Amino acid sequence: MIELEKIENPAFLKNLKEPALSELAATIRSFLISEIAKTGGHLSSNLGIVELTIAIHKVFNSPKDKIIFDVGHQAYTHKILTGRAKEFPSLRQYNGLSGYLKRSESVHDCWEAGHSSTALSAMAGFELARKMTNSTGKTVAIIGDGSLNSGLSFEALNFLGHEPGIAPIIILNDNEMSISKNVGTLAKLLNSLRASRTYRKASSSKLIPRFFRDIKIRVGNMLRGFAKNLTIFDEFGLRYYGPIDGHNFKTLIHYLELVKQLNRPCVLHVVTKKGKGYPFAENDPYGMWHGVVPFDVETGLPLNKKAENIVSWSNIISDYVYQYAQTHDSFRVIIPAMINGSGLRRFQQDFPEKIIDVGICESFAVCMSAALSMENIQVFVPIYSSFLQRAYDQVIHDVARQHQHVIFGIDRAGLVGGDGETHQGLYDISYLRHIPEMEIVQPKDPFEAWQLLDYAFLVSTHPIAIRYSRQKLLFNPDALEDREPILAPSWTISRNGHKAILIAYGENVGRMERMLEKTTLDVKVVNARFIKPLDTKMLNGLLIEGLPIMVVEDVTEVGGLGSAILEYASGRPGFIPKISIHGLPDQFIEQGDNENIYQKYHLDDTFLIDRLKDLIEKNTQ
Amino acid sequence: MIELEKIENPAFLKNLKEPALSELAATIRSFLISEIAKTGGHLSSNLGIVELTIAIHKVFNSPKDKIIFDVGHQAYTHKILTGRAKEFPSLRQYNGLSGYLKRSESVHDCWEAGHSSTALSAMAGFELARKMTNSTGKTVAIIGDGSLNSGLSFEALNFLGHEPGIAPIIILNDNEMSISKNVGTLAKLLNSLRASRTYRKASSSKLIPRFFRDIKIRVGNMLRGFAKNLTIFDEFGLRYYGPIDGHNFKTLIHYLELVKQLNRPCVLHVVTKKGKGYPFAENDPYGMWHGVVPFDVETGLPLNKKAENIVSWSNIISDYVYQYAQTHDSFRVIIPAMINGSGLRRFQQDFPEKIIDVGICESFAVCMSAALSMENIQVFVPIYSSFLQRAYDQVIHDVARQHQHVIFGIDRAGLVGGDGETHQGLYDISYLRHIPEMEIVQPKDPFEAWQLLDYAFLVSTHPIAIRYSRQKLLFNPDALEDREPILAPSWTISRNGHKAILIAYGENVGRMERMLEKTTLDVKVVNARFIKPLDTKMLNGLLIEGLPIMVVEDVTEVGGLGSAILEYASGRPGFIPKISIHGLPDQFIEQGDNENIYQKYHLDDTFLIDRLKDLIEKNTQ
Repeated sequence: MIELEKIENPAFLKNLKEPALSELAATIRSFLISEIAKTGGHLSSNLGIVELTIAIHKVFNSPKDKIIFDVGHQAYTHKILTGRAKEFPSLRQYNGLSGYLKRSESVHDCWEAGHSSTALSAMAGFELARKMTNSTGKTVAIIGDGSLNSGLSFEALNFLGHEPGIAPIIILNDNEMSISKNVGTLAKLLNSLRASRTYRKASSSKLIPRFFRDIKIRVGNMLRGFAKNLTIFDEFGLRYYGPIDGHNFKTLIHYLELVKQLNRPCVLHVVTKKGKGYPFAENDPYGMWHGVVPFDVETGLPLNKKAENIVSWSNIISDYVYQYAQTHDSFRVIIPAMINGSGLRRFQQDFPEKIIDVGICESFAVCMSAALSMENIQVFVPIYSSFLQRAYDQVIHDVARQHQHVIFGIDRAGLVGGDGETHQGLYDISYLRHIPEMEIVQPKDPFEAWQLLDYAFLVSTHPIAIRYSRQKLLFNPDALEDREPILAPSWTISRNGHKAILIAYGENVGRMERMLEKTTLDVKVVNARFIKPLDTKMLNGLLIEGLPIMVVEDVTEVGGLGSAILEYASGRPGFIPKISIHGLPDQFIEQGDNENIYQKYHLDDTFLIDRLKDLIEKNTQ
Repeated sequence: MIELEKIENPAFLKNLKEPALSELAATIRSFLISEIAKTGGHLSSNLGIVELTIAIHKVFNSPKDKIIFDVGHQAYTHKILTGRAKEFPSLRQYNGLSGYLKRSESVHDCWEAGHSSTALSAMAGFELARKMTNSTGKTVAIIGDGSLNSGLSFEALNFLGHEPGIAPIIILNDNEMSISKNVGTLAKLLNSLRASRTYRKASSSKLIPRFFRDIKIRVGNMLRGFAKNLTIFDEFGLRYYGPIDGHNFKTLIHYLELVKQLNRPCVLHVVTKKGKGYPFAENDPYGMWHGVVPFDVETGLPLNKKAENIVSWSNIISDYVYQYAQTHDSFRVIIPAMINGSGLRRFQQDFPEKIIDVGICESFAVCMSAALSMENIQVFVPIYSSFLQRAYDQVIHDVARQHQHVIFGIDRAGLVGGDGETHQGLYDISYLRHIPEMEIVQPKDPFEAWQLLDYAFLVSTHPIAIRYSRQKLLFNPDALEDREPILAPSWTISRNGHKAILIAYGENVGRMERMLEKTTLDVKVVNARFIKPLDTKMLNGLLIEGLPIMVVEDVTEVGGLGSAILEYASGRPGFIPKISIHGLPDQFIEQGDNENIYQKYHLDDTFLIDRLKDLIEKNTQ
């Protein structure tokens, strides 16, 4: 038996045959289950492609051949085969093995991706480079059917079958799931491909490309009065092979050898079973076993049994949305493939018509929400901070600029722990704060969360984002009954003090209070639950107090609440009297010549000169 | 003859028959040519859909039926038919008629779009709302074949044919162009649809949906030994009709009536001629007549003859790129459908293999560029500031986070004049500045542009964006020979002074100099040509001088250079001693528990308490 910890690179696979390959797969599978049970991590997707990954590394030669995983979280077997088994105890931990691909970890990691659907674009770049340099290496991308739904995949597909002189090999890893069950027409098309074709076995195909086989089939079919269509991939200029059984080494290796020789764009359709080899994960239509915390292998139960009333922020928010849906019909949740992660499973079961899962299509989700809102349908879009990055233009161009009151639930805002760089929710304040009309709020506790949700759902008429982190916390829904509404953007004083002012929002408010409790410092804590707009009335008062101000936030220092406070304070007597900033105001700016716009918005020479004179005068007094 | 200025709404069309319809079309066409010749505006796309727009308004009932134009710039005929002909003299001017749709202008403008490919998402929202309210109105979207290329269109298409109970009517306006000639597999597929089918005439179809007609065709074809495929739209669950002649009222009205009755998702493929009726615009494969300045109708020449050496910033940049390509083989320009607008026509003619037009696919363009860069191909991506909004996630997740040196040419940065709200380049600094490793520069003049391009192409190893506006300026390429390289991020003093400091970048540097020349003010002007990173050495010196500082910029006040200076100065003695900001530093943050991350990046309790004590102590001294 092969000791996984001793593997240094995939070269040993070249001489491995059945049954040794199946033995290796079994060893890897139990290694994955026992290791992930200890550390937590991505389970189902990794169990699904053990054989496929082994077969790819046997047939292709990484790193000369580039193997691209669409979303790096499915590459655990790849990590094992490229010498990283011994590092699994540190998986997803500080200074430990990444849960995704990482170019700095291995020469075999040619592309990093935490967001889905980038693989085909990456392969387009690699193939163009290969063509330029006449390199003989191959480019292989493993992409799930769920990732194919995304517009980015389509844009790349539209290119790959068309560009001359390239020969991308797309492995379509079809498990009928994205993270949870897949949606949309493309899913239907793949279903019908699976249903209408019997699996291709290694022996039966005789290396005849599907295109030619299909002519035979078509001729046969015509006799029965029906014609068989080419697949959508063929229409896009990619020769289609499959579907084949993704757990059968003989078939896998046979077809991988075939596409390797082909030298033209092609798709190999491989059917795999997500969670394969671990029954709990196999029978899981909801994606509960997609990403897991440490668990007991026998029972499938989490190792750290939840303390009572400890829940995620996602649950606190979705509980509100649930009760809101009970009493509001003109209401829809639009969600891009994250029903489970967003805690909306129960919502979907009880209000199936009120939640629309659009698959991994963030841009579409947000753009469509603008139109729904125009028709007076209230829309809630729960989405992770890092994934909303994909719909930035739709937030600014379609929602905000058209003055639509869409409510964004920004999940996983702030630090995200084990997911690391690609998933950090550190940028949303900076990429949303400059969008005119946008409101951004973050609650310090569940009680305030529901108050702010009341504000978002019942008071606000603007696009509004409510942020919440991935941390767990105590939650007692009974305490929420008597909450008072928040009727206007406002901050609160959450601790009194007279020597300095500490401004924070979200969980940092409580953290700062606890931190100060341990000291004798006489410091005021302000809960800036509205990150935009600022509570300028309170901020004015605070500035007038003249105390030093410290702003603490769990996001990038560039463009966060701290910058907002600086921007507001700049030019004010006593605080930042000496820096005066003149740009376009925080509203959408209409058409017109520069002169008109400058004059209207105080960027014209006359205004600027007066202001300069004023600054100089004050400075020399 | 109908007086266009007297039209109040499209109701009059109901009783209009041929030849009155053709007369109306001719009247509108000459009105468009003569009006746009005076004001400038979008010409070709509007001339192409005069008949189609009239026919749609005749068959459907706006505003009860929603008519969505994908990209509002093609809706001039719609504007005329909905009572706005008399406002055309103010087209695209300050306080004048918008060049795009505008909900505040008319109840007939149900959706605003300056960016392409939003129409199908909008119609998904409108159709869902219609289903919820059991409204009987129809939803019609007019979308060009170029816009269909975009991933956003695909995401919506994947939804529209799949969602039960909706009946979107997609009018595919096929002119074989996006703005210039179309690219990609989808373009090929549409070509083959056009080629393989004869135009459907009103008389021949007998209202038989294409699906059924195709069975007949298929039966016929089988006899000849070939099967006919369904179209890609049919595969996506949308019944396909067409192609039909988009300039023939009889056919248009016949098919529009047909799809109006259909009550299921469908696509009507209409072939139109861009620029129809104006020979210069008809014979224009490059999109020169897409958006035009005022011109002489007879000669087609611009009214304001260009002064010698007056060029656009796009040309200055593309001249550099041209000379760079002459001496560098490992170099590619990746461009999303903007070759003409970006001044790269000559480049494409002389280096066709070095420029890749990917169509309206900003996300794909940027993501692919990251992969090319990994293979040591230098990549330049010219893109409008407002369109790069569509690739924000690819800039942060794929380019910057993977440390790739991709060079972005941010065209139309700043105010954009007649294009208005949807095209304002006011946000790129704010949405790029918080991206770790990103560099952002803007030249004050052509000489500095080439210096900064030298820096971007030859010195920098980071992702870098060079911004330039849509203004025209004097340019003498001969003066560029002796330029000295810029070897590190640096600012310059462009005017001396001792009473105040004015910091600007780009054309504002010259504007501020000229402004001050008219006064006796003793003010220094600093050219902050690096917006990120700041020239901290010079900024330190400026802060120590203790003079008042004014920052002037042509972008939103939220998150621009002014904020960057405030962030840097905060906590500094003498300037902003009282505001201290603590968040995550401007770099990508790795995986790990909050405690580890807090400690590493000075967000832990111990550090914060020390800093607080320090602030309090200094304040009470």
